[in-house]
Amino acid sequence: MFSSPAGDASEEDKSVKFTGWAAVPGGDGVLQRWSYHPRPLSADEVEIEITHCGICGSDIHFMTEGWSPITRPAIPGHEIVGTVVKRGEDATHQIGDRVGVGCLVSCCRGSSVCSWCKKGEDQFCENKTVTFNSPFKDGRGGISEGGFADRIRVYSDYAFKIPKEISSAEAASFFCAGITTYTPLKRYKAGPNTRLGVIGIGGLGHIALQWAAAMGCQEIVAISGRDNKKDEAFKLGATKFINTSDKEQIKEAAKSIDLCLCTNGSSNNNWEEYLSMMAPLSQLVLLALPEEPITFVGSHLVSRDVAIVGSHLGSKGDIEEMLEFAAKQGIRPWIEKRPFEDINEACKDVHAGKPRYRIVLEMDPSTSTVTSTSS
Amino acid sequence: MFSSPAGDASEEDKSVKFTGWAAVPGGDGVLQRWSYHPRPLSADEVEIEITHCGICGSDIHFMTEGWSPITRPAIPGHEIVGTVVKRGEDATHQIGDRVGVGCLVSCCRGSSVCSWCKKGEDQFCENKTVTFNSPFKDGRGGISEGGFADRIRVYSDYAFKIPKEISSAEAASFFCAGITTYTPLKRYKAGPNTRLGVIGIGGLGHIALQWAAAMGCQEIVAISGRDNKKDEAFKLGATKFINTSDKEQIKEAAKSIDLCLCTNGSSNNNWEEYLSMMAPLSQLVLLALPEEPITFVGSHLVSRDVAIVGSHLGSKGDIEEMLEFAAKQGIRPWIEKRPFEDINEACKDVHAGKPRYRIVLEMDPSTSTVTSTSS
Repeated sequence: MFSSPAGDASEEDKSVKFTGWAAVPGGDGVLQRWSYHPRPLSADEVEIEITHCGICGSDIHFMTEGWSPITRPAIPGHEIVGTVVKRGEDATHQIGDRVGVGCLVSCCRGSSVCSWCKKGEDQFCENKTVTFNSPFKDGRGGISEGGFADRIRVYSDYAFKIPKEISSAEAASFFCAGITTYTPLKRYKAGPNTRLGVIGIGGLGHIALQWAAAMGCQEIVAISGRDNKKDEAFKLGATKFINTSDKEQIKEAAKSIDLCLCTNGSSNNNWEEYLSMMAPLSQLVLLALPEEPITFVGSHLVSRDVAIVGSHLGSKGDIEEMLEFAAKQGIRPWIEKRPFEDINEACKDVHAGKPRYRIVLEMDPSTSTVTSTSS
Repeated sequence: MFSSPAGDASEEDKSVKFTGWAAVPGGDGVLQRWSYHPRPLSADEVEIEITHCGICGSDIHFMTEGWSPITRPAIPGHEIVGTVVKRGEDATHQIGDRVGVGCLVSCCRGSSVCSWCKKGEDQFCENKTVTFNSPFKDGRGGISEGGFADRIRVYSDYAFKIPKEISSAEAASFFCAGITTYTPLKRYKAGPNTRLGVIGIGGLGHIALQWAAAMGCQEIVAISGRDNKKDEAFKLGATKFINTSDKEQIKEAAKSIDLCLCTNGSSNNNWEEYLSMMAPLSQLVLLALPEEPITFVGSHLVSRDVAIVGSHLGSKGDIEEMLEFAAKQGIRPWIEKRPFEDINEACKDVHAGKPRYRIVLEMDPSTSTVTSTSS
């Protein structure tokens, strides 16, 4: 196991290797131990010793080749928390800082900045790099590797300092599940006039319910195909529960939802049923990406100006705001911690929809090279 | 032919019949002469002698049973212009006023008003009645009959005074094609920062291009499957033309459109191609209702917050604003006038997509009982 001491970037060792768990071609969705040479640490980057990484449905889609085939070994993981162990001279974080990394690791660099970066919507940046298996577009070459590993190097503007109120394990889930649900609620102005729906009470949905309660939504409707999470949905903030296997409940909810987050990325979405519950001028927001095409009759949209709209992550500003909001409001993901060594079993459990509600991998503290400056 | 003199509602003749052209069960899409007894004229209604009525794609969908079967004789037509020939005592219009009627003829009446009427969005009213073949929900019974007829009775708040600058024939098309295209441009704030797309250069599209030009859109992209309307599209205000049969043109336009009105209600829409042209945070607005389901892969929406959204008509306030805007800006539909007697041939031509760009039926002036007070 790699264990170079924390230090300055100028001490860069060309023989450095980071080691993690990679999806490999023909690997049948089973992650394998794999090492890679990180890019040299640049002046505005930090090196993070990873202590925690959440497992997200999109890691599973990737590992199981649901979206596209795996063509090279690639380390997934994009809900990363750890400690800064090296810093470039211009990096904004200090050695020992506790930081998190989400779905993006780079956007426009230098003087040429795209219109989206200018607007503070870097999640749409034309030169962005997502956290794993994505070619860097910053002119330095290389392909990104994710957080199912011992370390990662990222630009310091994509490492976010974690508020002291939030533990590292709980913080991890905010970096994808948290921001993915927070951003559309903010963009579509969820608040006291909003009858909010949340489809799917899982890794994303259980945080969405908590945001909605803290934002004071008029009604918070948890929507699920089964009753088994009903009690917990109410504990998480729901004011109403719809079981979609009961068609009467869907009929009764006709045209009653102003904003709805669909967190269900599986193949059992019934788009027409969802749309039937949407009020005029409402938005049904897709947060998870189903592998099958989306199909519905247009009248659901045209008769009352309903929108089906996607939502892609959040900006750097959104992430900072979310962390502060979560710290203040006492919002925390409900997580199960698992040792990193059990990653394949943990991924299987996520694939099977077992977690209540998010699994976070935890590195064995005995392998750590540093002591964090905060919790 | 009915020819009762203009007069006061109190002179109501129970034997009154209005005569028009109705779609009938088993009629194979051919309209037949048919008469009906109108409802007694109420205090806040006017009776209009119809001089013009536009033909809309939705009339054709209805007549040809594309959306649902015809179960009773029903007179279509919802781009109605004529002269007020009778008025209830509380009606806001005067005898002789030149007025138009669009897609709706009633919303909440009396003291119980729904939330949408309160917001001035009566197009979503829970008690609305559309202009033809729709049961009234105002407690007076009856089913609405449309404008392919000699007369119509409507609540005076659904009859809109036509600005003197606009001829009756040209005004007709504003009441569906005009408002349907005007409303989403207003709602989604089309203006100098908008790269606007218009899919389908027909009855709706040719007006949309004119609105967009008057609103000063940064770019106005006419999108069509053929080049045959290219020159006219530029005359109507387009600054760019995309022929969707040339896949290179679609690729070049990737992620370049901020707001796009889809006016194509036929079966040859390629949703994924359209979505590929949409920029982050953009809206693809459905104005026409295809008979087939809409299908696409979700990544188009999720990767950059693109919305597919319907747009249903416009409010009473929108209609008044639109008529004023059109009068001031010199915007006029490009129409072909046809005698009402040729209605079936005219409908066939609309079905075949022949008009450049809208057909308006015109009543033989010799059958008129009144002289209008304005052009």
